[in-house]
Amino acid sequence: MIRINDNFCKLPDAYLFSEVARRLKAYSDAHPDVEVIRMGIGDVTLPICPAAVQAMEKAVAEQGDAATFHGYGPEQGYAFLREAICRTDYTDRGIAIEPDEIFVSDGAKSDTGNIGDILPPDARVAVTDPVYPVYVDTNVMAGRAGELGADGRWSNIVYLPCTADNDFVPALPAEPVDAVYLCYPNNPTGTTLNREQLKVWVDWARSNGVLILFDSAYEAYIRNEKDVPRSIYEIEGAREVAIEFRSFSKTAGFTGMRCGYTVVPKALKGSTSDGREVSLRDLWNRRQCTKFNGASYPVQRAAEALYTPEGRKQVKAAVDYYMNNASTLRLGLKEAGFEVFGGENSPYIWIKTPGGMTSWEFFDLLLEKYHIAGTPGSGFGPSGEGYFRLTAFNTAELTAAAVERLKT
Amino acid sequence: MIRINDNFCKLPDAYLFSEVARRLKAYSDAHPDVEVIRMGIGDVTLPICPAAVQAMEKAVAEQGDAATFHGYGPEQGYAFLREAICRTDYTDRGIAIEPDEIFVSDGAKSDTGNIGDILPPDARVAVTDPVYPVYVDTNVMAGRAGELGADGRWSNIVYLPCTADNDFVPALPAEPVDAVYLCYPNNPTGTTLNREQLKVWVDWARSNGVLILFDSAYEAYIRNEKDVPRSIYEIEGAREVAIEFRSFSKTAGFTGMRCGYTVVPKALKGSTSDGREVSLRDLWNRRQCTKFNGASYPVQRAAEALYTPEGRKQVKAAVDYYMNNASTLRLGLKEAGFEVFGGENSPYIWIKTPGGMTSWEFFDLLLEKYHIAGTPGSGFGPSGEGYFRLTAFNTAELTAAAVERLKT
Repeated sequence: MIRINDNFCKLPDAYLFSEVARRLKAYSDAHPDVEVIRMGIGDVTLPICPAAVQAMEKAVAEQGDAATFHGYGPEQGYAFLREAICRTDYTDRGIAIEPDEIFVSDGAKSDTGNIGDILPPDARVAVTDPVYPVYVDTNVMAGRAGELGADGRWSNIVYLPCTADNDFVPALPAEPVDAVYLCYPNNPTGTTLNREQLKVWVDWARSNGVLILFDSAYEAYIRNEKDVPRSIYEIEGAREVAIEFRSFSKTAGFTGMRCGYTVVPKALKGSTSDGREVSLRDLWNRRQCTKFNGASYPVQRAAEALYTPEGRKQVKAAVDYYMNNASTLRLGLKEAGFEVFGGENSPYIWIKTPGGMTSWEFFDLLLEKYHIAGTPGSGFGPSGEGYFRLTAFNTAELTAAAVERLKT
Repeated sequence: MIRINDNFCKLPDAYLFSEVARRLKAYSDAHPDVEVIRMGIGDVTLPICPAAVQAMEKAVAEQGDAATFHGYGPEQGYAFLREAICRTDYTDRGIAIEPDEIFVSDGAKSDTGNIGDILPPDARVAVTDPVYPVYVDTNVMAGRAGELGADGRWSNIVYLPCTADNDFVPALPAEPVDAVYLCYPNNPTGTTLNREQLKVWVDWARSNGVLILFDSAYEAYIRNEKDVPRSIYEIEGAREVAIEFRSFSKTAGFTGMRCGYTVVPKALKGSTSDGREVSLRDLWNRRQCTKFNGASYPVQRAAEALYTPEGRKQVKAAVDYYMNNASTLRLGLKEAGFEVFGGENSPYIWIKTPGGMTSWEFFDLLLEKYHIAGTPGSGFGPSGEGYFRLTAFNTAELTAAAVERLKT
């Protein structure tokens, strides 16, 4: 028989969002007349902005003309985009990052998944709990997770609970780890770490030789920029320990376009087991050059347009729109008597399920009684049990309608 | 210190095409007045066809309108594209493949690289030699290659020499392997396997529980369809042992667009180390759902248009154009006294370097004396030493000019 990577078979059958989709479909098939308001999967509803559409149309026309055709591009992304990102997201904000530390890709899911390629095969990783499932599942596939316990925890992954009990601020791991995934503003809880709280992590990582994998896909939703850093590189010393992942998906509606980027500073050094110093930027560059061929040229042109004055204005309007929804949800749910978290610097609202219901019980109740679809917190990890995620990515009308349904 | 995946450090510094680009740049910088004809990297020169441009323009406009906007798509690709691929490339050609066995991606480089995720961590792989470097380097990164010997061979990879001595037909591995990468029409040699020769591999794989990773990125260039299979699934039993990789890059000029697909038949079964039967299709599906978020929607619409009657006609015209170049090159080089292979069912011409020169010596000679850039055969593996690759992807004018230079 053909041999395979056994580690895949350790994964439970259903990926969270597939299970949500399956239950939703079953319900809709059985009740074709009911309009379910979907606030589950974090997909957006606003179209991409006019600046991006125009830039992409122009790029598509270029692809149809031999004189302007673009074939293979740089695996790291085109300079025009890397420079626009660097200038706007870092330099102009006083953060010392250079264009050749930025790697454009087809999205943050690919990058946060593929980053495992440069970790030691026997690395021990820590995750906050609840957590975006990709961080855990990709480590399971790579054989780093150990065995799945009855408590829903993998034996070789260190879980850092984030619940109302600790104000959603994870404690530092009590045991040695090689890498930690931090996502702030957090998916799924919608909570943030302030400067002081994030500095604790950077200082600890520097002292202990730990790599921080910092997912800031939701940084554009931060309203309180004084206290909440948009980039981990706002923290001193972070360039020596952190890789930052970003995405155009949620801010610019690029979920179907596919573009994101990853920052690996040249100051970030690792070590081989025999003690040679290695640049993680060079490792990631090698990974991308060998297993990736660059993001689509017209898509990179569309992303570049997000950094023009019109593009920035249009992106801001979309983010504002979703943040109004977040506010509607947060206030409405509070009014309806729910205990809610997040939604202030994030498009995600994290609800404590009422009356001690499990997350999936609340999912079924919400779906069947209120015709609202969300995501069960327990799907994000053991400490998500008893919580529930709603997203602000639906339309203002349906968000308001959902709140009305919940109030009555 | 932060620990890293040591296996990356085993890789020699330069990726073949980077080194070619470096030498080219150094030469051009030193001789800015010289026009070098580039026939090295396999990039195309014709723009994408009108059918694809129109479809993509329409899709971009859809993305700018909330009523037609497409967010996250299926990780496996949209049904419209999977069905078009299945019908045209398989069903209509009498090959039993189903749409849900087809996985659309951002390109064959990603897929042939990422497929390693589902192989056992300790798998022993075989490659033809010379070989597309991605197959080898990705296995080095994953820790499967062992150590690099002074002879340029990795200790745990089985090399199958393909040279003029054996008519470029690899012998079956003499020792047990878990998987073998076969690329036909071959990159870099431009040679093919006929039905009988490929059947030997399929039969052997079935008897020995070996997975065939069949890269048919160049199938559209096959002229002799009677003898040379375009898909490995034309061979009986292949669905039980083979994964097939395909690309829109070379046929439809999608090198900068990024789209390809991988076929994993449901009949392809593997086994866990404790003997449980596993569907490789399900493993790949899980890999893609966890580490990939689908190809760009407008790009998938462009790819779909390649399957319309106009699209097919336009793609055929581009392939014919390049095959005319291949013919010009092949005949011209022969006339100039070179020993040449390939180019009959492939856009690649494989030249025996004259007078016992090494591949890199011939590279430098060709660049400095004839101002033609190609790719040194030794860059593709030890058995590529003494050979040289030229591609048919330049314009007809420059291809003819290159031949004229070589004749004089």
